[in-house]
Amino acid sequence: VAHGVRLTVAYDGTDFHGFQRQPGLRTVQGALESAVERVIHGPTTTRGAGRTDAGVHAEGQIVAFATERELNARRWVQAINRYLPDDVSVRAMEPCEPEYDPRFDARDKTYRYLMLTAPIRDALLAHRVWHLNRHIRYEAPARDTLEGVQPLLDLAAMREACAVLEGTHDFRAFRAAGDTRDNTVRTMLHARLHEHWQGHPNLLAFEIRGNAFMQNMVRILAGTLVAVGSGRRSVESVRALLEPGADRRQAGETAPPQGLTLVHVTLGRRALEAASR
Amino acid sequence: VAHGVRLTVAYDGTDFHGFQRQPGLRTVQGALESAVERVIHGPTTTRGAGRTDAGVHAEGQIVAFATERELNARRWVQAINRYLPDDVSVRAMEPCEPEYDPRFDARDKTYRYLMLTAPIRDALLAHRVWHLNRHIRYEAPARDTLEGVQPLLDLAAMREACAVLEGTHDFRAFRAAGDTRDNTVRTMLHARLHEHWQGHPNLLAFEIRGNAFMQNMVRILAGTLVAVGSGRRSVESVRALLEPGADRRQAGETAPPQGLTLVHVTLGRRALEAASR
Repeated sequence: VAHGVRLTVAYDGTDFHGFQRQPGLRTVQGALESAVERVIHGPTTTRGAGRTDAGVHAEGQIVAFATERELNARRWVQAINRYLPDDVSVRAMEPCEPEYDPRFDARDKTYRYLMLTAPIRDALLAHRVWHLNRHIRYEAPARDTLEGVQPLLDLAAMREACAVLEGTHDFRAFRAAGDTRDNTVRTMLHARLHEHWQGHPNLLAFEIRGNAFMQNMVRILAGTLVAVGSGRRSVESVRALLEPGADRRQAGETAPPQGLTLVHVTLGRRALEAASR
Repeated sequence: VAHGVRLTVAYDGTDFHGFQRQPGLRTVQGALESAVERVIHGPTTTRGAGRTDAGVHAEGQIVAFATERELNARRWVQAINRYLPDDVSVRAMEPCEPEYDPRFDARDKTYRYLMLTAPIRDALLAHRVWHLNRHIRYEAPARDTLEGVQPLLDLAAMREACAVLEGTHDFRAFRAAGDTRDNTVRTMLHARLHEHWQGHPNLLAFEIRGNAFMQNMVRILAGTLVAVGSGRRSVESVRALLEPGADRRQAGETAPPQGLTLVHVTLGRRALEAASR
Protein backbone atom coordinates (compact mmCIF):
# COMPACT_ATOMS: atom_id res chain seq x y z
CA VAL A 1 0.00 0.00 0.00
CA ALA A 2 1.17 3.46 -0.81
CA HIS A 3 2.10 5.94 1.92
CA GLY A 4 3.33 9.50 1.81
CA VAL A 5 6.83 10.91 2.32
CA ARG A 6 7.29 14.57 3.21
CA LEU A 7 10.75 16.10 2.89
CA THR A 8 12.31 19.35 4.10
CA VAL A 9 14.66 20.43 1.35
CA ALA A 10 17.45 23.03 1.08
CA TYR A 11 18.98 24.26 -2.16
CA ASP A 12 21.28 26.81 -3.66
CA GLY A 13 19.21 28.10 -6.57
CA THR A 14 22.15 29.57 -8.51
CA ASP A 15 22.48 26.81 -11.09
CA PHE A 16 18.80 25.80 -11.31
CA HIS A 17 16.07 27.01 -13.64
CA GLY A 18 13.83 27.39 -10.60
CA PHE A 19 12.02 24.79 -8.53
CA GLN A 20 9.37 23.55 -10.94
CA ARG A 21 10.07 20.62 -13.27
CA GLN A 22 10.59 21.69 -16.92
CA PRO A 23 11.56 19.31 -19.72
CA GLY A 24 15.19 19.60 -20.72
CA LEU A 25 16.10 22.11 -17.98
CA ARG A 26 17.94 21.60 -14.71
CA THR A 27 15.35 22.22 -11.98
CA VAL A 28 15.20 21.41 -8.26
CA GLN A 29 12.07 19.31 -8.65
CA GLY A 30 13.66 17.41 -11.55
CA ALA A 31 16.79 16.67 -9.49
CA LEU A 32 14.65 15.53 -6.53
CA GLU A 33 12.49 13.28 -8.67
CA SER A 34 15.52 11.66 -10.29
CA ALA A 35 17.01 10.96 -6.86
CA VAL A 36 13.74 9.63 -5.40
CA GLU A 37 13.27 7.39 -8.45
CA ARG A 38 16.67 5.81 -7.84
CA VAL A 39 15.69 5.11 -4.23
CA ILE A 40 12.23 3.70 -4.91
CA HIS A 41 13.15 1.97 -8.22
CA GLY A 42 10.17 3.40 -10.07
CA PRO A 43 8.61 6.60 -11.39
CA THR A 44 7.47 9.38 -9.06
CA THR A 45 5.79 12.76 -9.07
CA THR A 46 6.58 15.21 -6.28
CA ARG A 47 4.53 18.13 -4.99
CA GLY A 48 6.22 21.24 -3.54
CA ALA A 49 4.91 23.82 -1.07
CA GLY A 50 5.89 26.67 -3.36
CA ARG A 51 7.57 27.40 -6.66
CA THR A 52 10.74 29.40 -6.38
CA ASP A 53 12.18 31.19 -9.41
CA ALA A 54 15.56 30.63 -11.03
CA GLY A 55 18.33 31.82 -8.71
CA VAL A 56 16.15 31.76 -5.57
CA HIS A 57 17.37 29.60 -2.67
CA ALA A 58 15.58 27.55 0.00
CA GLU A 59 16.42 26.49 3.53
CA GLY A 60 13.07 24.84 4.22
CA GLN A 61 11.15 23.98 1.05
CA ILE A 62 8.60 21.16 1.59
CA VAL A 63 8.26 18.39 -1.01
CA ALA A 64 6.02 15.30 -0.82
CA PHE A 65 5.43 12.13 -2.83
CA ALA A 66 3.70 8.76 -2.51
CA THR A 67 5.49 5.42 -2.60
CA GLU A 68 5.19 1.79 -1.55
CA ARG A 69 8.78 1.68 -0.37
CA GLU A 70 9.12 1.58 3.43
CA LEU A 71 12.13 3.22 5.07
CA ASN A 72 12.60 5.03 8.37
CA ALA A 73 13.13 8.80 8.43
CA ARG A 74 16.90 8.59 8.72
CA ARG A 75 17.19 6.14 5.81
CA TRP A 76 14.98 8.25 3.54
CA VAL A 77 17.13 11.31 4.15
CA GLN A 78 20.40 9.44 3.67
CA ALA A 79 19.24 7.51 0.60
CA ILE A 80 17.86 10.51 -1.31
CA ASN A 81 20.84 12.70 -0.40
CA ARG A 82 23.15 10.08 -1.89
CA TYR A 83 21.64 10.64 -5.35
CA LEU A 84 21.18 14.42 -5.18
CA PRO A 85 23.71 16.89 -6.60
CA ASP A 86 25.75 19.06 -4.18
CA ASP A 87 23.39 22.02 -4.47
CA VAL A 88 20.25 20.27 -3.16
CA SER A 89 19.95 18.39 0.12
CA VAL A 90 17.20 16.81 2.16
CA ARG A 91 17.23 17.95 5.79
CA ALA A 92 14.37 15.92 7.29
CA MET A 93 11.61 13.43 6.48
CA GLU A 94 8.21 12.89 8.05
CA PRO A 95 5.46 10.47 7.03
CA CYS A 96 2.22 11.87 5.57
CA GLU A 97 -0.89 10.79 3.67
CA PRO A 98 -0.16 9.40 0.16
CA GLU A 99 -2.10 12.22 -1.53
CA TYR A 100 -0.61 14.91 0.75
CA ASP A 101 0.02 18.19 -1.06
CA PRO A 102 2.16 20.65 0.93
CA ARG A 103 0.79 23.56 -1.08
CA PHE A 104 -2.63 23.08 0.52
CA ASP A 105 -1.22 22.38 3.96
CA ALA A 106 0.98 25.49 4.21
CA ARG A 107 -0.30 27.83 6.92
CA ASP A 108 2.34 30.41 6.23
CA LYS A 109 5.76 30.89 4.66
CA THR A 110 8.78 32.90 5.70
CA TYR A 111 11.10 34.48 3.16
CA ARG A 112 14.36 36.36 3.68
CA TYR A 113 15.71 38.92 1.23
CA LEU A 114 19.39 39.85 1.67
CA MET A 115 20.91 43.15 0.59
CA LEU A 116 24.56 44.19 0.57
CA THR A 117 24.72 47.86 1.55
CA ALA A 118 28.25 48.68 0.41
CA PRO A 119 29.56 50.49 -2.66
CA ILE A 120 31.87 47.58 -3.54
CA ARG A 121 30.57 44.11 -4.35
CA ASP A 122 31.68 41.01 -2.44
CA ALA A 123 32.75 37.90 -4.39
CA LEU A 124 31.88 35.62 -1.47
CA LEU A 125 28.27 36.83 -1.50
CA ALA A 126 27.76 37.18 -5.27
CA HIS A 127 25.00 34.56 -5.49
CA ARG A 128 23.30 35.38 -2.19
CA VAL A 129 22.62 39.12 -2.10
CA TRP A 130 21.28 42.08 -4.00
CA HIS A 131 24.25 44.40 -4.17
CA LEU A 132 22.88 47.91 -3.56
CA ASN A 133 25.32 49.83 -5.63
CA ARG A 134 23.62 52.52 -7.68
CA HIS A 135 20.27 51.99 -5.89
CA ILE A 136 21.27 53.97 -2.82
CA ARG A 137 23.75 56.74 -2.17
CA TYR A 138 26.81 56.53 0.05
CA GLU A 139 28.38 59.12 2.29
CA ALA A 140 32.14 59.32 2.10
CA PRO A 141 34.51 61.39 4.25
CA ALA A 142 36.70 61.77 1.15
CA ARG A 143 36.03 61.37 -2.56
CA ASP A 144 39.13 59.39 -3.40
CA THR A 145 39.01 56.51 -0.89
CA LEU A 146 36.51 53.93 0.28
CA GLU A 147 37.37 54.27 3.95
CA GLY A 148 34.59 55.32 6.27
CA VAL A 149 31.99 55.05 3.51
CA GLN A 150 28.46 54.69 4.92
CA PRO A 151 25.23 53.81 3.12
CA LEU A 152 22.66 56.62 3.13
CA LEU A 153 19.70 54.46 4.02
CA ASP A 154 16.79 55.61 6.15
CA LEU A 155 16.31 52.44 8.18
CA ALA A 156 13.62 54.03 10.36
CA ALA A 157 11.52 54.75 7.26
CA MET A 158 12.12 51.21 5.98
CA ARG A 159 10.97 49.83 9.35
CA GLU A 160 7.85 52.00 9.19
CA ALA A 161 7.14 50.64 5.71
CA CYS A 162 7.55 47.09 7.06
CA ALA A 163 4.97 47.83 9.74
CA VAL A 164 2.59 49.10 7.05
CA LEU A 165 2.83 45.74 5.27
CA GLU A 166 1.83 43.74 8.36
CA GLY A 167 -1.80 42.65 8.57
CA THR A 168 -4.35 41.77 5.88
CA HIS A 169 -4.13 43.84 2.71
CA ASP A 170 -4.72 43.72 -1.01
CA PHE A 171 -1.23 43.15 -2.45
CA ARG A 172 -2.27 43.44 -6.12
CA ALA A 173 0.38 46.11 -6.74
CA PHE A 174 3.09 43.66 -5.59
CA ARG A 175 2.81 40.85 -8.10
CA ALA A 176 4.36 39.97 -11.46
CA ALA A 177 2.81 42.04 -14.27
CA GLY A 178 1.41 38.97 -16.04
CA ASP A 179 -0.43 37.64 -12.96
CA THR A 180 -4.20 37.89 -13.43
CA ARG A 181 -5.61 36.03 -10.42
CA ASP A 182 -8.65 37.52 -8.71
CA ASN A 183 -7.85 37.07 -5.07
CA THR A 184 -4.90 39.28 -4.22
CA VAL A 185 -5.61 39.70 -0.50
CA ARG A 186 -2.88 38.28 1.71
CA THR A 187 -2.09 38.41 5.43
CA MET A 188 1.43 39.26 6.52
CA LEU A 189 2.18 38.01 10.05
CA HIS A 190 5.36 39.98 10.29
CA ALA A 191 7.76 42.00 8.16
CA ARG A 192 11.09 43.00 9.69
CA LEU A 193 14.53 44.33 8.91
CA HIS A 194 17.66 42.87 10.50
CA GLU A 195 20.91 44.81 10.30
CA HIS A 196 24.33 43.14 10.48
CA TRP A 197 22.91 39.81 9.39
CA GLN A 198 25.13 36.92 10.57
CA GLY A 199 27.50 39.50 12.01
CA HIS A 200 28.28 41.02 8.59
CA PRO A 201 28.49 44.84 8.92
CA ASN A 202 26.92 45.50 5.50
CA LEU A 203 24.24 42.84 5.26
CA LEU A 204 20.63 43.91 5.65
CA ALA A 205 17.98 41.16 5.82
CA PHE A 206 14.31 41.77 5.09
CA GLU A 207 12.29 38.92 6.58
CA ILE A 208 8.61 38.50 5.89
CA ARG A 209 6.14 35.85 7.02
CA GLY A 210 2.70 35.61 5.45
CA ASN A 211 -0.13 33.21 4.75
CA ALA A 212 0.61 33.18 1.01
CA PHE A 213 2.64 35.06 -1.58
CA MET A 214 2.17 35.83 -5.25
CA GLN A 215 4.88 35.54 -7.89
CA ASN A 216 7.67 38.11 -7.42
CA MET A 217 5.85 39.55 -4.39
CA VAL A 218 8.78 39.47 -1.95
CA ARG A 219 11.15 40.76 -4.63
CA ILE A 220 8.85 43.71 -5.46
CA LEU A 221 8.44 44.41 -1.74
CA ALA A 222 12.25 44.42 -1.38
CA GLY A 223 12.62 46.77 -4.35
CA THR A 224 9.98 49.09 -2.91
CA LEU A 225 11.60 49.08 0.55
CA VAL A 226 14.95 50.09 -0.94
CA ALA A 227 13.22 52.99 -2.70
CA VAL A 228 11.86 54.05 0.71
CA GLY A 229 15.27 53.67 2.35
CA SER A 230 17.00 55.74 -0.31
CA GLY A 231 14.42 58.54 -0.03
CA ARG A 232 13.01 58.00 -3.52
CA ARG A 233 9.57 57.26 -2.10
CA SER A 234 7.65 57.87 1.12
CA VAL A 235 6.21 55.44 3.65
CA GLU A 236 2.86 57.02 2.78
CA SER A 237 3.24 55.90 -0.84
CA VAL A 238 3.67 52.30 0.35
CA ARG A 239 0.44 52.61 2.31
CA ALA A 240 -1.24 53.89 -0.89
CA LEU A 241 -0.03 50.79 -2.77
CA LEU A 242 -2.26 48.69 -0.53
CA GLU A 243 -5.35 50.78 -1.31
CA PRO A 244 -7.95 49.87 -3.98
CA GLY A 245 -6.89 50.85 -7.48
CA ALA A 246 -3.13 50.57 -6.91
CA ASP A 247 -1.25 48.64 -9.58
CA ARG A 248 2.14 47.10 -10.33
CA ARG A 249 3.50 50.14 -12.15
CA GLN A 250 3.26 52.23 -8.98
CA ALA A 251 5.33 49.84 -6.86
CA GLY A 252 9.11 49.58 -6.84
CA GLU A 253 11.39 47.53 -9.08
CA THR A 254 11.59 43.74 -8.81
CA ALA A 255 14.73 42.99 -6.80
CA PRO A 256 16.97 40.31 -8.40
CA PRO A 257 16.35 36.64 -7.50
CA GLN A 258 19.67 35.73 -5.86
CA GLY A 259 18.89 37.76 -2.70
CA LEU A 260 15.80 35.66 -1.94
CA THR A 261 15.55 32.54 0.24
CA LEU A 262 12.47 30.51 1.19
CA VAL A 263 13.35 30.08 4.86
CA HIS A 264 10.47 28.12 6.36
CA VAL A 265 7.02 26.73 5.62
CA THR A 266 4.66 26.33 8.58
CA LEU A 267 2.49 23.29 7.90
CA GLY A 268 -0.74 22.09 9.50
CA ARG A 269 -3.42 24.11 7.74
CA ARG A 270 -5.48 21.00 6.98
CA ALA A 271 -5.46 19.85 10.61
CA LEU A 272 -6.36 23.38 11.67
CA GLU A 273 -9.26 23.52 9.22
CA ALA A 274 -10.50 20.06 10.26
CA ALA A 275 -10.44 21.09 13.93
CA SER A 276 -12.46 24.24 13.26
CA ARG A 277 -15.22 22.40 11.36
CA VAL B 1 57.21 56.89 -13.36
CA ALA B 2 55.94 53.58 -12.04
CA HIS B 3 54.28 53.33 -8.67
CA GLY B 4 52.83 50.40 -6.77
CA VAL B 5 49.21 49.35 -6.25
CA ARG B 6 48.30 47.05 -3.38
CA LEU B 7 44.87 45.40 -3.42
CA THR B 8 42.85 43.52 -0.80
CA VAL B 9 41.06 40.76 -2.69
CA ALA B 10 38.19 38.36 -1.87
CA TYR B 11 37.31 35.26 -3.86
CA ASP B 12 35.19 32.17 -3.86
CA GLY B 13 37.73 29.50 -4.78
CA THR B 14 35.18 26.91 -5.95
CA ASP B 15 35.62 27.42 -9.69
CA PHE B 16 39.33 28.35 -9.69
CA HIS B 17 42.39 26.16 -10.09
CA GLY B 18 43.88 27.95 -7.12
CA PHE B 19 45.41 31.39 -6.79
CA GLN B 20 48.59 31.04 -8.81
CA ARG B 21 48.64 31.81 -12.53
CA GLN B 22 48.83 28.65 -14.71
CA PRO B 23 48.69 28.65 -18.51
CA GLY B 24 45.32 27.53 -19.86
CA LEU B 25 43.67 27.24 -16.43
CA ARG B 26 41.21 29.56 -14.70
CA THR B 27 43.10 30.99 -11.72
CA VAL B 28 42.51 33.95 -9.39
CA GLN B 29 45.80 35.56 -10.34
CA GLY B 30 45.02 35.08 -14.03
CA ALA B 31 41.59 36.72 -13.63
CA LEU B 32 43.13 39.62 -11.67
CA GLU B 33 45.87 40.19 -14.21
CA SER B 34 43.38 40.21 -17.10
CA ALA B 35 41.26 42.79 -15.27
CA VAL B 36 44.24 44.97 -14.32
CA GLU B 37 45.52 44.84 -17.91
CA ARG B 38 42.21 46.19 -19.16
CA VAL B 39 42.43 49.06 -16.70
CA ILE B 40 46.08 50.01 -17.34
CA HIS B 41 45.98 49.20 -21.10
CA GLY B 42 49.18 47.17 -20.94
CA PRO B 43 50.74 43.98 -19.61
CA THR B 44 51.15 43.37 -15.88
CA THR B 45 52.52 40.87 -13.40
CA THR B 46 50.97 40.66 -9.96
CA ARG B 47 52.46 39.34 -6.71
CA GLY B 48 50.29 37.72 -4.05
CA ALA B 49 50.83 37.35 -0.31
CA GLY B 50 50.12 33.63 -0.42
CA ARG B 51 49.16 30.89 -2.81
CA THR B 52 45.85 29.27 -2.02
CA ASP B 53 44.96 25.87 -3.48
CA ALA B 54 42.04 25.04 -5.78
CA GLY B 55 38.76 25.35 -3.87
CA VAL B 56 40.22 27.53 -1.10
CA HIS B 57 38.58 30.94 -0.54
CA ALA B 58 39.91 34.33 0.55
CA GLU B 59 38.43 37.30 2.34
CA GLY B 60 41.67 39.26 2.55
CA GLN B 61 44.29 38.10 0.04
CA ILE B 62 46.86 40.82 -0.78
CA VAL B 63 47.96 41.36 -4.37
CA ALA B 64 50.33 44.03 -5.69
CA PHE B 65 51.57 45.28 -9.05
CA ALA B 66 53.44 48.23 -10.55
CA THR B 67 51.99 50.63 -13.10
CA GLU B 68 52.36 54.11 -14.51
CA ARG B 69 48.60 54.68 -14.47
CA GLU B 70 47.46 57.11 -11.76
CA LEU B 71 44.04 56.64 -10.13
CA ASN B 72 42.75 57.26 -6.64
CA ALA B 73 41.92 54.33 -4.35
CA ARG B 74 38.21 54.38 -5.08
CA ARG B 75 38.74 54.45 -8.84
CA TRP B 76 41.23 51.56 -8.75
CA VAL B 77 38.77 49.39 -6.84
CA GLN B 78 35.82 50.29 -9.07
CA ALA B 79 37.75 49.95 -12.33
CA ILE B 80 39.28 46.55 -11.58
CA ASN B 81 36.01 45.17 -10.18
CA ARG B 82 34.28 46.10 -13.42
CA TYR B 83 36.45 43.62 -15.33
CA LEU B 84 36.57 40.82 -12.76
CA PRO B 85 34.22 37.83 -12.81
CA ASP B 86 31.55 37.50 -10.06
CA ASP B 87 33.68 35.20 -7.92
CA VAL B 88 36.60 37.63 -7.37
CA SER B 89 36.34 41.16 -6.03
CA VAL B 90 38.71 43.88 -4.90
CA ARG B 91 37.82 45.27 -1.47
CA ALA B 92 40.43 47.99 -1.01
CA MET B 93 43.48 49.64 -2.58
CA GLU B 94 46.49 51.30 -1.02
CA PRO B 95 49.56 52.75 -2.71
CA CYS B 96 52.92 51.00 -2.22
CA GLU B 97 56.44 50.91 -3.66
CA PRO B 98 56.59 49.71 -7.31
CA GLU B 99 58.64 46.64 -6.39
CA TYR B 100 56.49 45.84 -3.33
CA ASP B 101 56.02 42.11 -2.77
CA PRO B 102 53.31 41.29 -0.19
CA ARG B 103 54.85 37.88 0.42
CA PHE B 104 57.89 39.52 2.04
CA ASP B 105 55.83 42.11 3.87
CA ALA B 106 53.40 39.69 5.54
CA ARG B 107 53.89 39.69 9.31
CA ASP B 108 51.27 37.04 9.84
CA LYS B 109 48.24 35.43 8.23
CA THR B 110 44.90 34.29 9.64
CA TYR B 111 43.08 31.28 8.21
CA ARG B 112 39.64 29.91 9.09
CA TYR B 113 38.67 26.28 8.57
CA LEU B 114 34.91 25.56 8.70
CA MET B 115 33.41 22.20 9.65
CA LEU B 116 29.78 21.11 9.49
CA THR B 117 29.13 18.84 12.49
CA ALA B 118 25.87 17.23 11.38
CA PRO B 119 25.12 13.80 9.93
CA ILE B 120 23.28 15.33 6.95
CA ARG B 121 24.98 17.60 4.46
CA ASP B 122 23.73 21.12 3.70
CA ALA B 123 23.33 22.23 0.07
CA LEU B 124 23.73 25.89 1.01
CA LEU B 125 27.17 25.21 2.53
CA ALA B 126 28.45 22.62 0.04
CA HIS B 127 31.39 24.72 -1.18
CA ARG B 128 32.27 26.30 2.17
CA VAL B 129 32.63 23.51 4.73
CA TRP B 130 34.12 20.13 5.46
CA HIS B 131 31.07 18.00 6.14
CA LEU B 132 32.01 15.76 9.10
CA ASN B 133 29.93 12.77 8.22
CA ARG B 134 31.85 9.55 8.75
CA HIS B 135 34.76 11.33 10.45
CA ILE B 136 32.98 11.63 13.77
CA ARG B 137 30.19 9.70 15.46
CA TYR B 138 26.76 11.03 16.34
CA GLU B 139 24.57 10.30 19.33
CA ALA B 140 20.90 9.72 18.50
CA PRO B 141 17.98 9.27 20.90
CA ALA B 142 16.47 6.87 18.34
CA ARG B 143 17.96 4.90 15.45
CA ASP B 144 15.26 5.70 12.90
CA THR B 145 15.05 9.49 13.02
CA LEU B 146 17.44 12.41 12.81
CA GLU B 147 15.81 14.40 15.57
CA GLY B 148 17.93 15.24 18.58
CA VAL B 149 21.08 13.92 16.89
CA GLN B 150 24.22 15.37 18.50
CA PRO B 151 27.84 15.18 17.30
CA LEU B 152 30.13 13.23 19.60
CA LEU B 153 32.98 15.68 19.56
CA ASP B 154 35.27 16.35 22.49
CA LEU B 155 35.55 20.12 22.13
CA ALA B 156 37.57 20.45 25.34
CA ALA B 157 40.23 18.12 23.90
CA MET B 158 40.20 20.01 20.60
CA ARG B 159 40.70 23.29 22.49
CA GLU B 160 43.61 21.74 24.43
CA ALA B 161 45.14 20.67 21.12
CA CYS B 162 44.73 24.23 19.80
CA ALA B 163 46.60 25.53 22.84
CA VAL B 164 49.41 23.04 22.14
CA LEU B 165 49.82 24.52 18.63
CA GLU B 166 50.28 28.08 19.90
CA GLY B 167 53.85 29.32 20.16
CA THR B 168 56.98 28.53 18.15
CA HIS B 169 57.29 24.91 17.03
CA ASP B 170 58.67 22.71 14.29
CA PHE B 171 55.61 22.00 12.11
CA ARG B 172 57.40 19.55 9.76
CA ALA B 173 54.74 16.89 10.39
CA PHE B 174 52.05 19.29 9.15
CA ARG B 175 53.07 19.92 5.56
CA ALA B 176 52.36 18.37 2.16
CA ALA B 177 54.29 15.13 1.69
CA GLY B 178 56.27 16.51 -1.28
CA ASP B 179 57.51 19.59 0.59
CA THR B 180 61.27 19.38 1.21
CA ARG B 181 62.13 22.81 2.59
CA ASP B 182 64.60 22.98 5.47
CA ASN B 183 63.07 25.56 7.74
CA THR B 184 59.86 24.15 9.14
CA VAL B 185 59.72 26.21 12.32
CA ARG B 186 56.70 28.52 12.50
CA THR B 187 55.12 30.68 15.20
CA MET B 188 51.38 30.44 15.80
CA LEU B 189 50.02 33.56 17.50
CA HIS B 190 46.72 31.93 18.24
CA ALA B 191 44.68 28.83 17.40
CA ARG B 192 41.03 28.78 18.45
CA LEU B 193 37.74 26.99 17.96
CA HIS B 194 34.47 28.89 17.57
CA GLU B 195 31.20 26.99 17.94
CA HIS B 196 27.95 28.14 16.27
CA TRP B 197 29.83 30.14 13.71
CA GLN B 198 27.64 32.96 12.30
CA GLY B 199 24.83 31.67 14.49
CA HIS B 200 24.67 28.29 12.71
CA PRO B 201 24.12 25.53 15.31
CA ASN B 202 26.34 22.99 13.50
CA LEU B 203 29.19 25.11 12.23
CA LEU B 204 32.55 24.81 13.95
CA ALA B 205 35.28 27.25 12.94
CA PHE B 206 38.98 26.60 13.56
CA GLU B 207 40.83 29.89 13.32
CA ILE B 208 44.61 30.09 13.32
CA ARG B 209 46.97 33.03 13.03
CA GLY B 210 50.66 32.49 12.45
CA ASN B 211 53.77 34.14 11.02
CA ALA B 212 53.86 31.75 8.04
CA PHE B 213 52.29 28.51 6.84
CA MET B 214 53.48 25.62 4.70
CA GLN B 215 51.43 23.99 1.94
CA ASN B 216 48.41 22.10 3.30
CA MET B 217 49.42 23.01 6.86
CA VAL B 218 46.05 24.39 8.02
CA ARG B 219 44.20 21.54 6.33
CA ILE B 220 46.40 18.90 8.02
CA LEU B 221 45.96 20.71 11.36
CA ALA B 222 42.17 20.64 10.83
CA GLY B 223 42.25 16.93 9.99
CA THR B 224 44.35 16.24 13.08
CA LEU B 225 42.04 18.29 15.32
CA VAL B 226 39.01 16.32 14.12
CA ALA B 227 40.85 13.09 14.99
CA VAL B 228 41.35 14.52 18.50
CA GLY B 229 37.73 15.57 18.78
CA SER B 230 36.45 12.17 17.70
CA GLY B 231 38.68 10.38 20.22
CA ARG B 232 40.86 8.72 17.56
CA ARG B 233 43.95 10.47 18.90
CA SER B 234 45.08 12.15 22.10
CA VAL B 235 46.15 15.72 22.78
CA GLU B 236 49.47 14.21 23.85
CA SER B 237 49.95 12.78 20.35
CA VAL B 238 49.55 16.28 18.90
CA ARG B 239 52.27 17.52 21.25
CA ALA B 240 54.48 14.65 20.01
CA LEU B 241 53.95 15.77 16.40
CA LEU B 242 55.79 18.99 17.24
CA GLU B 243 58.81 17.10 18.63
CA PRO B 244 61.99 16.33 16.62
CA GLY B 245 61.62 13.28 14.39
CA ALA B 246 57.87 13.58 13.82
CA ASP B 247 56.76 13.28 10.21
CA ARG B 248 53.72 13.75 7.97
CA ARG B 249 52.55 10.14 8.21
CA GLN B 250 51.95 10.52 11.95
CA ALA B 251 49.65 13.53 11.58
CA GLY B 252 45.97 13.46 10.62
CA GLU B 253 44.42 13.49 7.18
CA THR B 254 44.44 16.57 4.96
CA ALA B 255 41.02 18.17 5.33
CA PRO B 256 39.39 19.08 1.97
CA PRO B 257 40.09 22.53 0.46
CA GLN B 258 36.57 24.01 0.42
CA GLY B 259 36.50 24.46 4.23
CA LEU B 260 39.49 26.82 4.15
CA THR B 261 39.50 30.62 3.86
CA LEU B 262 42.46 33.02 3.97
CA VAL B 263 40.87 35.59 6.27
CA HIS B 264 43.49 38.26 6.76
CA VAL B 265 47.11 39.15 6.07
CA THR B 266 48.81 41.49 8.55
CA LEU B 267 51.30 43.58 6.61
CA GLY B 268 54.20 45.76 7.76
CA ARG B 269 57.03 43.29 8.25
CA ARG B 270 59.43 45.40 6.19
CA ALA B 271 58.71 48.55 8.18
CA LEU B 272 59.11 46.55 11.39
CA GLU B 273 62.44 45.12 10.25
CA ALA B 274 63.68 48.54 9.14
CA ALA B 275 62.78 50.03 12.52
CA SER B 276 64.64 47.32 14.42
CA ARG B 277 67.85 47.71 12.39
